[in-house]
Amino acid sequence: MKRPLEPSAEGRGRVVGITDGVFAIALTLIVLEIRVPAHETVHSENELIAAVAALAPRFLTYALSFLTLTIFWFGQQAQHGLVAKSDRRLATLNLCFLGFVALLPFSTDLLADFLEFRTAVLVYWLNLLMLGLTLLASWRYADKNGFLAEGVDAETTRTVYLRIVKAQILWAIGAALCLVSPLLSVGFILVVQLIYAAALRAPLLRKIIG
Amino acid sequence: MKRPLEPSAEGRGRVVGITDGVFAIALTLIVLEIRVPAHETVHSENELIAAVAALAPRFLTYALSFLTLTIFWFGQQAQHGLVAKSDRRLATLNLCFLGFVALLPFSTDLLADFLEFRTAVLVYWLNLLMLGLTLLASWRYADKNGFLAEGVDAETTRTVYLRIVKAQILWAIGAALCLVSPLLSVGFILVVQLIYAAALRAPLLRKIIG
Amino acid sequence: MKRPLEPSAEGRGRVVGITDGVFAIALTLIVLEIRVPAHETVHSENELIAAVAALAPRFLTYALSFLTLTIFWFGQQAQHGLVAKSDRRLATLNLCFLGFVALLPFSTDLLADFLEFRTAVLVYWLNLLMLGLTLLASWRYADKNGFLAEGVDAETTRTVYLRIVKAQILWAIGAALCLVSPLLSVGFILVVQLIYAAALRAPLLRKIIG
Amino acid sequence: MKRPLEPSAEGRGRVVGITDGVFAIALTLIVLEIRVPAHETVHSENELIAAVAALAPRFLTYALSFLTLTIFWFGQQAQHGLVAKSDRRLATLNLCFLGFVALLPFSTDLLADFLEFRTAVLVYWLNLLMLGLTLLASWRYADKNGFLAEGVDAETTRTVYLRIVKAQILWAIGAALCLVSPLLSVGFILVVQLIYAAALRAPLLRKIIG
Repeated sequence: MKRPLEPSAEGRGRVVGITDGVFAIALTLIVLEIRVPAHETVHSENELIAAVAALAPRFLTYALSFLTLTIFWFGQQAQHGLVAKSDRRLATLNLCFLGFVALLPFSTDLLADFLEFRTAVLVYWLNLLMLGLTLLASWRYADKNGFLAEGVDAETTRTVYLRIVKAQILWAIGAALCLVSPLLSVGFILVVQLIYAAALRAPLLRKIIG
Repeated sequence: MKRPLEPSAEGRGRVVGITDGVFAIALTLIVLEIRVPAHETVHSENELIAAVAALAPRFLTYALSFLTLTIFWFGQQAQHGLVAKSDRRLATLNLCFLGFVALLPFSTDLLADFLEFRTAVLVYWLNLLMLGLTLLASWRYADKNGFLAEGVDAETTRTVYLRIVKAQILWAIGAALCLVSPLLSVGFILVVQLIYAAALRAPLLRKIIG
Repeated sequence: MKRPLEPSAEGRGRVVGITDGVFAIALTLIVLEIRVPAHETVHSENELIAAVAALAPRFLTYALSFLTLTIFWFGQQAQHGLVAKSDRRLATLNLCFLGFVALLPFSTDLLADFLEFRTAVLVYWLNLLMLGLTLLASWRYADKNGFLAEGVDAETTRTVYLRIVKAQILWAIGAALCLVSPLLSVGFILVVQLIYAAALRAPLLRKIIG
Repeated sequence: MKRPLEPSAEGRGRVVGITDGVFAIALTLIVLEIRVPAHETVHSENELIAAVAALAPRFLTYALSFLTLTIFWFGQQAQHGLVAKSDRRLATLNLCFLGFVALLPFSTDLLADFLEFRTAVLVYWLNLLMLGLTLLASWRYADKNGFLAEGVDAETTRTVYLRIVKAQILWAIGAALCLVSPLLSVGFILVVQLIYAAALRAPLLRKIIG
């Protein structure tokens, strides 16, 4: 007998569909914060060059959020590749994760507008933290309820946990640096994202970030 | 002989594609209402903290609409998982449902801006009502025209109907509470959404919300 | 030997993916024109009711464009269901079609803002015309180059042509009515869309709109 | 034993999903720059005709960016059709490419607003250049790491390289023309895009653009 919303492979496919959709939109929305200079304020080539150059902080936060989205897209994908099926609760945890993905354009915009304030850095970090926590919660749920694919051994399961925790520790260090200077904080987090996104093979680095 | 738009499995797949797309966009658009404070109005950390704290009602309506979208995404998915094929009319009913999904960012925005007015609560409730009615209509159509998958028995069919009706009754109670206070109304609906989204296993609750 | 962009079933799948994406976004963007009233202008329940009621023309054009998108989504789908593979040119024609789908939120907005001007109606009709022409061109291209699926006979091919032409004739009549009154024009087109979207089975109507 | 994010066919499918999503959104966002004239400034049919006609430069840059997106969508698709699987780095290169796709609405808007300034043309060209470079990098990576599908011979591999390089040479010539006049530059690039998008079969042209 067929019942609604039983754990199924199709439910898993739908989660993939909505996830890629939300990421695609978030990736495009963070660009909207890079606003074209007002036409009235520009009267010469030099003024336009200056106006475009003045957008530098927005390009910086764009790059930062772009890398963040990249990293979490891979994080979600790495998990999902190891999950064989999805029930309603796992899908709900995934949607909570997407809810924080959808908030990233807001955090990014706040950061771009208030790069000199610690509060903006902390809100951004909180967003990173919630992304990690929801990812952790869905991995734990899939693990405990036997939704993992065949062939996923204890070591792999542990690796997934560790990666999330290690990244969060690095970002927490980054956030703490805003006690020194908000810009240092952003710079540190940006470097961390670059390292993750590039997925460097350097053995030492591998050992640190797992 | 092949004819255009016959009931088919491919038509069903297209409906899934556009549904996940509209939900993904709606999920991301409701965030756009959380607007970053204007730079001119903020001169210190404390002012920024105050400005972010002042966004609280918008975070509240964001959470509310996020939960609503989650619940209806599952609702559509629960139905669609039990439907074997789709003809043009069933797809049209599904698109009407999506039309009200697309309206949710508007209702949410109205609610966030006018949380103290009954009219805003009623418009939001009307949106919930139309979402339920279009879902009910497509289930009825699929049921009457033999589009349900094999193995869907009478009890399951009835469960789907009952769930929609029960949720609508709870939201109607919530909407009626705005006679007392619009905020009480929103609070009640938010609690209902939380219970549905969490899909609690508590037997008593299960009996009430089916 | 494998060559880039040969006619293939995968190319056909990609076209479906981007089509559903553009339609989903267009469906959601046309709602953005229904703007929430400014908070400063509203001081009581009655003023909010009046402000929401004043949005009526926008709800009207929303409904109109929603129906238009529905009809063309089915139109594209009806064609694509009869096409077995897609080469680069067929995909380009499809993208041109999507280009005019993407323009529909603009035409809708213009119409909502200038409902009393003939120019707005004509721009909207031009959009409908271009949607039909690009659809016609891709059907013709698929037909002439042997991309149609097996089992598509001459009668079905002709039916697809006729449907597009008949709809265009009805819209042209609607557009011509703006010589009498722009609102009459919009009303006529809205009724035509309703009939198409509802896909009525009335035999007389069937004979007229094919 | 299953490990996260190994090169797989599913990873390849996810890249296709997010790519079509970002392109669909970019295609729709570039339209948002065609803004409906303010209602206060229009009092007659003639004023509305004039106001719509004044949007001509925006329709021009819309057409330009629409063609650019079309060409790069095919470029990505041509590559992806020849790639059998994707690992995390190839996916990262693809996301970088998408990052520049997402920037195109910004470059388009800048160009539409400052069509008379060389700086705007150069920013637009830089965007085209980065799109080409990221596409080149991912092709090179797939080629060097044995991710190409069976049956892709050396000639096809070379053809893909050559196409990217030839297009970049043409756009560089176009960008250089802005020393004469920015509008000439835009016109030249627009003609190049038209030729590519139409995929003309003219043998002479074929020889030049490969």
